Amino acid sequence: MPHIALPAPIPGIRGLMETKPASGRRLSELAEQLLRGESPLSVGERELIAAYVSARNGTRFCTGAHGAAAAHALGGDFALVEAVRQDVTTAPVDERLRALLMLAGQVQTGGLAVTPADIERARAAGADDESIHDTVLIAAAFCMYNRYVDGLGAITPEDPALYDEMGEALVAKGYLG
Amino acid sequence: MPHIALPAPIPGIRGLMETKPASGRRLSELAEQLLRGESPLSVGERELIAAYVSARNGTRFCTGAHGAAAAHALGGDFALVEAVRQDVTTAPVDERLRALLMLAGQVQTGGLAVTPADIERARAAGADDESIHDTVLIAAAFCMYNRYVDGLGAITPEDPALYDEMGEALVAKGYLG
Repeated sequence: MPHIALPAPIPGIRGLMETKPASGRRLSELAEQLLRGESPLSVGERELIAAYVSARNGTRFCTGAHGAAAAHALGGDFALVEAVRQDVTTAPVDERLRALLMLAGQVQTGGLAVTPADIERARAAGADDESIHDTVLIAAAFCMYNRYVDGLGAITPEDPALYDEMGEALVAKGYLG
Repeated sequence: MPHIALPAPIPGIRGLMETKPASGRRLSELAEQLLRGESPLSVGERELIAAYVSARNGTRFCTGAHGAAAAHALGGDFALVEAVRQDVTTAPVDERLRALLMLAGQVQTGGLAVTPADIERARAAGADDESIHDTVLIAAAFCMYNRYVDGLGAITPEDPALYDEMGEALVAKGYLG
């Protein structure tokens, strides 16, 4: 049950943002920039980073929605998203994406957990400065979105079909629709 | 030393935002909304929450800048900011602000660390839904800003006078100046 009164029983972050549209709009605009704006990372790669960080934070709503968005953006590959969630060191992704996901995991632990070796691993696998920047910022941003959702007890549906629909809509329409 | 190349040796988050102005602008707009937009919490209270969360995350740059901003917004009370940083349970703040700071601390630990008892303590001390919402979102947002700053190794000056100047400028001009 949410910790504050919602104007309507809308699941997840959207229900919370309805309580204060002025900040909700800023959160949506940031998500649109980070996940749909120009980046050397594809939409699927960015949604996968978002889902991976959300899973590490234990935020079921964001894990479900962004996991489904990643799967849809990656051609329907739900098995890949699940493999990353279970063990990023063995998931069937290229070494550049693996290194960026591992960097995102360090950011989720804490900014001070990131070491020069984490950056070097990403660089050696072909990541440029902008890819490293975007990975750190997306991972950091989901440490915000996840805490907002869980810290206020957002409504979290159980039905996987709902997350599938949400993910499809996020890929088709983005975060300002 | 920063983990990515900066176009200019600007300290803290501003140096990082210069590397990608499109996302930098969204981050600044969000900060302006959360810390200067309409809220039942004063500017000083919100900056204090930001400084407290930053200290818990170990992010020296944000702790210094927002601690100084809080002190300036609270009439120059640097001793109060330091007392909150050292022990929020004994710092000379009213019980509503103490409960909100403790709630912010739980959010810093993780969204799932927030319990109904944390919310109830804030409510019993006079906090309304919007105060609870804003506290959770500001605390969550600083878990993002802090990870962005430390995860990319932002330039972190040592001179306290620099933070004093930054805090004064943040109170006078906000985050879009």
